[in-house]
Amino acid sequence: MLNATHNPQLKSWVASANSQTTDFPIQNLPFGVFTSAANSEPHVGVAIGDQIVDLYLLATSGLLDVNASLFAQANINAFMALDQTVWSSTRARLSYLLSNEDAATQAQIEPLLVGQSTATMLLPIKVEGYTDFYASREHATNVGTMFRDPENALMPNWLHIPIGYNGRASTVVVSGTDVRRPLGQLKPPTASEPHFGPTQKLDIELEMGAVVGTPNAMGTPLTVAQAQANIFGFVLLNDWSARDIQVWEYQPLGPFQAKAFATTISPWVVTQEALEPFRVDGPVQQPKPLDYLAQNQASNYDVALQVDINTAASDDTQTISQTNFKAMYWSSAQQLAHHSSSGCAMQTGDLLGSGTISGTTKDSLGSLLELTWNGKTPLTLASGEQRCFVENGDTLTLRGHCQGDGFRIGFGSAVGKILPAHSL
Amino acid sequence: MLNATHNPQLKSWVASANSQTTDFPIQNLPFGVFTSAANSEPHVGVAIGDQIVDLYLLATSGLLDVNASLFAQANINAFMALDQTVWSSTRARLSYLLSNEDAATQAQIEPLLVGQSTATMLLPIKVEGYTDFYASREHATNVGTMFRDPENALMPNWLHIPIGYNGRASTVVVSGTDVRRPLGQLKPPTASEPHFGPTQKLDIELEMGAVVGTPNAMGTPLTVAQAQANIFGFVLLNDWSARDIQVWEYQPLGPFQAKAFATTISPWVVTQEALEPFRVDGPVQQPKPLDYLAQNQASNYDVALQVDINTAASDDTQTISQTNFKAMYWSSAQQLAHHSSSGCAMQTGDLLGSGTISGTTKDSLGSLLELTWNGKTPLTLASGEQRCFVENGDTLTLRGHCQGDGFRIGFGSAVGKILPAHSL
Repeated sequence: MLNATHNPQLKSWVASANSQTTDFPIQNLPFGVFTSAANSEPHVGVAIGDQIVDLYLLATSGLLDVNASLFAQANINAFMALDQTVWSSTRARLSYLLSNEDAATQAQIEPLLVGQSTATMLLPIKVEGYTDFYASREHATNVGTMFRDPENALMPNWLHIPIGYNGRASTVVVSGTDVRRPLGQLKPPTASEPHFGPTQKLDIELEMGAVVGTPNAMGTPLTVAQAQANIFGFVLLNDWSARDIQVWEYQPLGPFQAKAFATTISPWVVTQEALEPFRVDGPVQQPKPLDYLAQNQASNYDVALQVDINTAASDDTQTISQTNFKAMYWSSAQQLAHHSSSGCAMQTGDLLGSGTISGTTKDSLGSLLELTWNGKTPLTLASGEQRCFVENGDTLTLRGHCQGDGFRIGFGSAVGKILPAHSL
Repeated sequence: MLNATHNPQLKSWVASANSQTTDFPIQNLPFGVFTSAANSEPHVGVAIGDQIVDLYLLATSGLLDVNASLFAQANINAFMALDQTVWSSTRARLSYLLSNEDAATQAQIEPLLVGQSTATMLLPIKVEGYTDFYASREHATNVGTMFRDPENALMPNWLHIPIGYNGRASTVVVSGTDVRRPLGQLKPPTASEPHFGPTQKLDIELEMGAVVGTPNAMGTPLTVAQAQANIFGFVLLNDWSARDIQVWEYQPLGPFQAKAFATTISPWVVTQEALEPFRVDGPVQQPKPLDYLAQNQASNYDVALQVDINTAASDDTQTISQTNFKAMYWSSAQQLAHHSSSGCAMQTGDLLGSGTISGTTKDSLGSLLELTWNGKTPLTLASGEQRCFVENGDTLTLRGHCQGDGFRIGFGSAVGKILPAHSL
C-alpha cells in the first residue's frame, strides 16, 4: 500500500538526496550500520543522499520515538525484531523529518548527519541463517543443460518447489571485504584421482537477498501473505562459487565448501516498504503452485541489476551483465513460505538468497559459468583481457536500482576483490 | 593426554557419582544449562551423579577461578569461547573439588548442588551453524543401495571427501522437546503430481554431534590436529528426517525441508577431554586421504549407542538398535578440517552432526529407513505393534556411553515424542 513516504514529488532538505541519480533519495531510506571518525562504536543509520542519519543520536535527541539503545548496536536485528508497524512508523517519521522545511528541525538534525564518504559500513545484519535458492528458470535451465541433460534441464521438482539449500551464514560479509580464493578438492574430468588446490573456476552469482525481520515459531508454517509481511527488506548478494569444487562435492547432499568461503552483501538494507511502488507480477506459474505456495498479489520487484568487473591490469570498469530481478520464477515470499512449510523456525536476521538472476539473453546472465558457458566462450574485455572465470586481483561489483519517476531506489553496491589463494 | 581427572579410581563425595551405572561419574563432568525451582535464570552447571554443580554459584563463592558472569548465561558458548587451557583447568579444579575429602570444602559446595530431578535442562549451546555429515560407510552404502545403484552405492567422491551439508540451526532443540510431524511436498512414485501433506515416512537418524569451542577466522583453514583441538565436546544427536519429503526435494541441491523441522540433542556436552581414554583408531582409510585430511593419531571414540522406542499404546521401552561411534569412516576432526578447508569460518557453538551411525548387522542400523529397508520389512515390537517409520505418540530415545573400568562416561539421552501434524 502506497503512502506519503512514496510520493515521487517529495524532496529532502539534504540536497544530495534530490539528485536523479542518487541511490538514496528520500523515498528510499535504507538501514545500515556504520562507524565514523567521530564514533568508533557502531550505530544504526539511514542513508539520505550522500549522508547518513545517525539513528542513535536522533532517538537520543528525542526526535525519533524509538528506544535509542536499539540503534547503538552492531546490526539492525534488534530493530527488525520490532513489530512491522514500528518499521513503518519509523520510516514515516524519518521521511517527515528529512523533508520538513522547518529550519529549526533541520538545525537539530544536521549535526547528526555523517558523510558516507567518511563512514565505514559494517555488515548490517547478524545473519542467523543463510539460505540460498535457485529460482531463476533461465539459470536453472542453463546449469541443467551444462551439467546434466539438455533435454531435461529442469529437474522434475523444479516447477513445484522453490528449490533451495542451507548456506553458510558465518562467511556472509559486507561489501568491500576482500575474498580469498579458496582451496578445495578438485577432480578435473581427465584426472583419475582428486587433488587439493586453489579453485580454477572462481565465479560470482548475481542475487538479491531477502532479510527476514519477523520470526515465526518452530512448528508454525507461514502462508505466503504472512511470509511477505515478515520480510524486512532486501540487499544485493554475490554468492561466490567455486565451480570445480562444487561439481566434485555436490552429489548427493548439495553444495558445501564450493559456497562456504564467502558471500558478499551490500551494506544498506532497502526496506520492502520502499520497494512497494515497484512490485510487479512475476512470470505465470504453470503448473499452478500447490495451495500453500499460492500468492494473491504481485510479489516480484522491478529491480534493474548489473555486474561490473575491474581487473588489476586496467583502470576501466566494464559491465558484463545487465538483468532484472522481476523475472524470477519464485518470489521471495513463496521461498520464505516454503522454507517454513515443514515447521522450520525462521529468525530475525535470516537471509534468503534469491538464486542467481539470469535473463534470456547472452548479456543478461548472472554468473560467469553461464556468460562463458563453463569457460568455453571467454569474455573479451575492452582492455583485451579475456575472462573465463574470476582472476586474482579482479574486483566484481553488483549494482541495482528501481527506476521511479525522477528518482531511483538504489541498493548501493556489493563489491569484492579477489586475493590469491594461500600457498599449500 | 591422560591426567589426574581420568583416574578410574577417583571417587566423589557426591555418593551417586560412584555408581557403576551413573552416566556422570567424576571422570565425566559434562557441561549443561539449567533452571531450577530456586532459580528461574539459566545457569551453567556440571553434572555429577544425580546432581548438578551450579558453576555460577561456585565461581561467585570464589571456589572456581573463572569469571562468574560466564556461567549466568543461557548457553555455554561464552565459556567455550575461552582458551582450551581454561576448559582443562576448570575440569581439573572441578575434579579436585568434587573428590576432595575435606569436610569444609564439601560443606561449602553442597548447598550449590541441585538435584537433576528438580532441574529443567535447556539447550546447552547457542547453535551458530549446524552441519550434518554422512560419514558412516555402512549408512552411505545402505542409502545408496536403496535409492541409487546397488552396484555403485557409494558415490565416487565419498572415499575422498567427508561429505556434508549445511543443516538448519534454528530448530536444534534440547532433549524432551516434542516434535511436530512435518507437512511437506510429497510425490509418491505412483502419483503424477505432488501434493502437500504430513510426511508418511518420519524417521530418526542416530548421530553424535561435535561442538566447536574455538573458532577460526574466515580464510584460515584448520589442519586436522587444529580441528581436533578446537572441538569442545560431544552430544547425542537425532537428525529427524522425513524421507518422502527428502526424496522429492533433494535433487540437485540436497536435503532441505526434510531435515529442517527438528534436530534433538542431549542436554549435557561431554567434553573431548573426558573422552580421551576412549580414543580409538577408526577404520583404515583406503585410498589414503589427501594431506589436508591426514590424521596422525587415533581420532575416533568408542561410544556404545542405542535407540529405544516407546509407543503410545504400550508401557514397554524397547531397544531397536545398538551400535558404536567408533566405526565411523571419517572422524569429527577430519570433518571439521574439511569444513574449514575453503576458508570457511567455524564459530564457537557450531554443531557438526557425524552422520547416521550404522553398523554392519541388521540390529545396528541408525535409522528406520535402514532397519525396515524403506518400510519393506517392518519391525515387530514386543507389544505386537509394527513400525515402518515413526508414528504419532512414539517417543524415541538415543543413549550412549563409554565403558570404563568400573565407571562409564555417559551422554544421558536425547528424547523426542512425536505430535500429530497440524491439520491442513
